[in-house]
Amino acid sequence: MSTISGVPYVYVLRGSLVESEHAVAACAAGAAGEVVLALGDIDVPVFLRSAVKPFIAAEIVASGAAARFAFDTRELAVIAASHCGEEFHVAAVRSILAKIGLDARALQCGVHPPSYEPAAAALVAAGEVPSALHSNCSGKHAGILAMCVHLGFDPSTYLAADHPVQQRILAFCARLVDEDSEGMPLGVDGCGIPVFATSLRRAARAFARFAMLTELEDSDARALETVRDAMAAEPRYVAGTGRFDSALIAATGGRIVGKAGAEGVHASALRREGLGLVLKVVDGARRAVPPATVALLRELRALEPDERASLSDFEVPEVRNVAGRVVGGIRSRGTDTIPAGPAS
Amino acid sequence: MSTISGVPYVYVLRGSLVESEHAVAACAAGAAGEVVLALGDIDVPVFLRSAVKPFIAAEIVASGAAARFAFDTRELAVIAASHCGEEFHVAAVRSILAKIGLDARALQCGVHPPSYEPAAAALVAAGEVPSALHSNCSGKHAGILAMCVHLGFDPSTYLAADHPVQQRILAFCARLVDEDSEGMPLGVDGCGIPVFATSLRRAARAFARFAMLTELEDSDARALETVRDAMAAEPRYVAGTGRFDSALIAATGGRIVGKAGAEGVHASALRREGLGLVLKVVDGARRAVPPATVALLRELRALEPDERASLSDFEVPEVRNVAGRVVGGIRSRGTDTIPAGPAS
Repeated sequence: MSTISGVPYVYVLRGSLVESEHAVAACAAGAAGEVVLALGDIDVPVFLRSAVKPFIAAEIVASGAAARFAFDTRELAVIAASHCGEEFHVAAVRSILAKIGLDARALQCGVHPPSYEPAAAALVAAGEVPSALHSNCSGKHAGILAMCVHLGFDPSTYLAADHPVQQRILAFCARLVDEDSEGMPLGVDGCGIPVFATSLRRAARAFARFAMLTELEDSDARALETVRDAMAAEPRYVAGTGRFDSALIAATGGRIVGKAGAEGVHASALRREGLGLVLKVVDGARRAVPPATVALLRELRALEPDERASLSDFEVPEVRNVAGRVVGGIRSRGTDTIPAGPAS
Repeated sequence: MSTISGVPYVYVLRGSLVESEHAVAACAAGAAGEVVLALGDIDVPVFLRSAVKPFIAAEIVASGAAARFAFDTRELAVIAASHCGEEFHVAAVRSILAKIGLDARALQCGVHPPSYEPAAAALVAAGEVPSALHSNCSGKHAGILAMCVHLGFDPSTYLAADHPVQQRILAFCARLVDEDSEGMPLGVDGCGIPVFATSLRRAARAFARFAMLTELEDSDARALETVRDAMAAEPRYVAGTGRFDSALIAATGGRIVGKAGAEGVHASALRREGLGLVLKVVDGARRAVPPATVALLRELRALEPDERASLSDFEVPEVRNVAGRVVGGIRSRGTDTIPAGPAS
């Protein structure tokens, strides 16, 4: 069984004692593949999950669907998003569907409540139930449906790995990571579409290309530029209020475009440094992703002091108990010593 | 920083690929301390969290409070429980509070919705909000309040580590794990009471003593016997419908009494083998606890084939996506090869 080898990197403290810890594997590399940071084994295949939504969005642009239906930057950002179901996210997805002549019934992403709690509470208060529009992946699914409509493919079977839109998406991603699309390990994502696995080394290089638009075919570069700039311009649409990716993109004025994936994946495109940074929390824990990402960005000297300061809730989160009392904190290797909470 | 060293043990598969993995540290030992199984470092202090609720319940019995207020086996089991807020759990906690002349306002465990989803949905449907009674720890808090009332201590300050009930509880636990109660690292639990850390080696020995009632002071043994037998007799009250501890106790007819704690802790008292088994998922993941526990119980030959069969949903869980499709599974080291889900 091929397994993931990481390095202990994120520590969850209760009082002054380490209660739990998370191992992380990570790679930072340039567009030509030069590795500048490696943590753990960077050559084991990892499912990138939603971290590759920007690449899926880019293929939707490359197909011509985005131009044909005149998607604006917010709509492009929500196609690349794992959004938390706020009203403005849902409105953007509705707008995409209206432009392509479909509605929420066409979405096959499954239904879960908005992960933004006030939005979930508002639904309950209004006596409404969540719909597929509230799924964190609804923008991506709406974008894939736009490709189906634009290219004349059946929009009712778009989840299948052998559907021509999924084949186009996988081929686009394979070009970016320099893999043979036939040979990439595939799985099924939480939202039902195919997901592929590749190494952190290849993924980091792909995100450097996304940052720099080099080492790419011209048409791929133009499509990636459109998506990159939409995410940089509309950070709230990439995740949502209080969410890490929105905060990271906003804090850096779009100089760093970050995108999380399920099971502890995170990818960043670093425009100033010309790097891609991709990490995997080995155990899949979401809570370790922001502290690890900020710590690694610091190792890469990619954050200015004020940017780091504005991300401190993500770099050194507090752990609170049910009643709201601070009982511990989360710290990464190399974090300056900061008390984690009362000892008792 | 003292950290926890475990061994990769639980694998989360998506299709046929390992997507995430969990390291586990574990110890099985007899009542005199003889170690029969060790995984990782068994001498690092670990917060046992709710796994020690049976010991807290035993001190409540030892104090005389349980006899004075005539708690029945269900009430004793819910004092030792991390329950999921079903109606019968809430009724048992209400009954404890009524017997001691208090009500839900005296509980300081904090409020969260029942973790049993139908119970949470029923509250919403009835237009009610969750109360402290629904907290998974409400039984324990009601039991601690019973000690306060019985012993004449202030019931309004019972969360404090220097409150005499907490001092009695910590002293009882310290006797069981052979630690100096002054020297044990303390933290604050999710529900607000003090928690202590001890090594897996000492914890396993304590759970062997809980199983066998040996190597104990007589009064401690009698109190532990009362709690052990209540948990064995009323497994539904220890956790709830579809929950691992209830299933484990029921499957073995009470021969194995298991109790989970937050952040990936689990403890079992094995009466036939005369062992305690305590494990910590290093990263704290709850999902790894049942597969790891069943796998380790199998290593100890503590499960009969029919018992194992009835626990298969916990030994080899499926991973489903939002729409309910099986996309993977969770497997432990040593699990017989079982396909984890479709490759794509």
